[in-house]
Amino acid sequence: MTASLRVAVLAGGYGGAKLSHGLALIEQRDPPLDLSVVVNTADDLQVHGLCVSPDLDTVMYTLAGLANPDTGWGLRDETWSAAEMLERYGVETWFRLGDRDLATNLLRTDRLRRGDRLTAVTDGLARALGIRARLLPMTDDRVATKVRTDDGWLDFQEYFVHRRHEDTVHELRYEGIAAARPTEEVLDALESADLLLLAPSNPFLSIGPILALPGVVETIVSARARVVAISPIVAGKAVRGPADRIFTSLGGRASAAGVATHYVERYPDLLDALVIDEVDYGDAPAIEALGLRVFPAATVMRSEPDRERLATEILESLGRRG
Amino acid sequence: MTASLRVAVLAGGYGGAKLSHGLALIEQRDPPLDLSVVVNTADDLQVHGLCVSPDLDTVMYTLAGLANPDTGWGLRDETWSAAEMLERYGVETWFRLGDRDLATNLLRTDRLRRGDRLTAVTDGLARALGIRARLLPMTDDRVATKVRTDDGWLDFQEYFVHRRHEDTVHELRYEGIAAARPTEEVLDALESADLLLLAPSNPFLSIGPILALPGVVETIVSARARVVAISPIVAGKAVRGPADRIFTSLGGRASAAGVATHYVERYPDLLDALVIDEVDYGDAPAIEALGLRVFPAATVMRSEPDRERLATEILESLGRRG
Repeated sequence: MTASLRVAVLAGGYGGAKLSHGLALIEQRDPPLDLSVVVNTADDLQVHGLCVSPDLDTVMYTLAGLANPDTGWGLRDETWSAAEMLERYGVETWFRLGDRDLATNLLRTDRLRRGDRLTAVTDGLARALGIRARLLPMTDDRVATKVRTDDGWLDFQEYFVHRRHEDTVHELRYEGIAAARPTEEVLDALESADLLLLAPSNPFLSIGPILALPGVVETIVSARARVVAISPIVAGKAVRGPADRIFTSLGGRASAAGVATHYVERYPDLLDALVIDEVDYGDAPAIEALGLRVFPAATVMRSEPDRERLATEILESLGRRG
Repeated sequence: MTASLRVAVLAGGYGGAKLSHGLALIEQRDPPLDLSVVVNTADDLQVHGLCVSPDLDTVMYTLAGLANPDTGWGLRDETWSAAEMLERYGVETWFRLGDRDLATNLLRTDRLRRGDRLTAVTDGLARALGIRARLLPMTDDRVATKVRTDDGWLDFQEYFVHRRHEDTVHELRYEGIAAARPTEEVLDALESADLLLLAPSNPFLSIGPILALPGVVETIVSARARVVAISPIVAGKAVRGPADRIFTSLGGRASAAGVATHYVERYPDLLDALVIDEVDYGDAPAIEALGLRVFPAATVMRSEPDRERLATEILESLGRRG
């Protein structure tokens, strides 16, 4: 029996969820796959007193096969009775929680209030939903992304959900990051991985907070994993969300080469390779000039077979040890 | 313009809710009706970290015209998605909360955690639902009914909901009652009432905790209101719930006369009159021998017109000042 291939994914919301799901869908593989998904929690927030972790839940619901395929967040077959009743009480509900989703948030909040770590709570929820991959919040500490716009500093979900990420982003900070620590489980996943994937999630809003945690980049650089990012920019546009506009407003370029530049300039020695979309093959020389290997693939995942196919291609190109 | 007739009701769950609703339904009356409902909170509990007030909500939903007519608790057109999801997570849900009901409990819990009084929270919820009566929790302090059965002391909802009030009750206590205080709003309603009604709710489980609050009986006795109880026992049976069996197991009698004896022995000088069902007219002499006036009426409220009719009869017989 061969030892398993250990894969760790750094993930935000939907892009990271889909890639992780593609990896989890690869049931039969030699060597077998051992999957850990490290998820951004800097977009967590309190809603009606509940501790809500949008990225964690997007990944969890996606891995459990319960995600709403139309929205990219929340659960399929969701109902909205509680939100309607809250509106009847005159409560502001721009961050609407579905009824099934409320159950997740109720349980998480109750267990956190009893003193459990977010890591343990998440593990309990994920196992109950039949997820075999390790689903790991990046930290048990509180980190909160803030976004500076023309109207000043905004809470992340105020910017992202309430104002539909329409504001121009001039500056970002991850409040609490200096005092936060990656968990032992995260450090262990990073240290023991054969292959570390930076999912096609937003480099500023999703991957950025994970890499900003004290010790994370150093741990990755000194560990043995091959480190590969998947570009979330295809043909100059974000597959989803505001990543392209944020690249531009923060002084970078919304392109596959811009993604490479971003990672190489901010985190020297971190990346070994970048997976870019086939349509961006013209960027390959510029990316290689930065010292990265380039792997072109069909990176846009519109269906479950797309997810499994991309995951398989990445593993076949990059998943060999050594 | 005539001054309004001030009516206060001491209420538990469904019996108190229906009588209060009957009073609230009397829109046009001369003098106009000013209604306060003082509700038992000794059956409150924590469910998944939420502060749940079953009696308060039964009265609130009933007064708002939103109650589920089939169950006597909860909301009409309720959905159960959150409870189903909690079950998927393997969580025990014998005290099931509907999705709309969850919204009420979320808001209450959030506001209590922010430091608001239960009285203020309840008032906000009731006004948002269009309720004009004053809906008053008996106290802002924590009181918890405990029930001694053959299996020892049980939490109230463990006995009532989980074990379907099938155990024989040997003893009752209201934990926290000595340190609890009725609110200023409750004392004001009791002091200023022209007519005080003890609803046809369980005398031990619903009315008992309210009367056990320090100062409540003294305030009622020294105030000017005529005090009238409505018997929850009709033809020897509780209209609903375990009141008849509790009368028997605690050494009393499950009859209209037994209700009179209970109130007169425990609270001398409290009651002026007892409303009994017409079928119990044979008990009238025994009740009058205890010093109470007797008013027979059709006390079983099967429909909304029944509620309004009973409320009207009580007001016409007993609602005159002096």
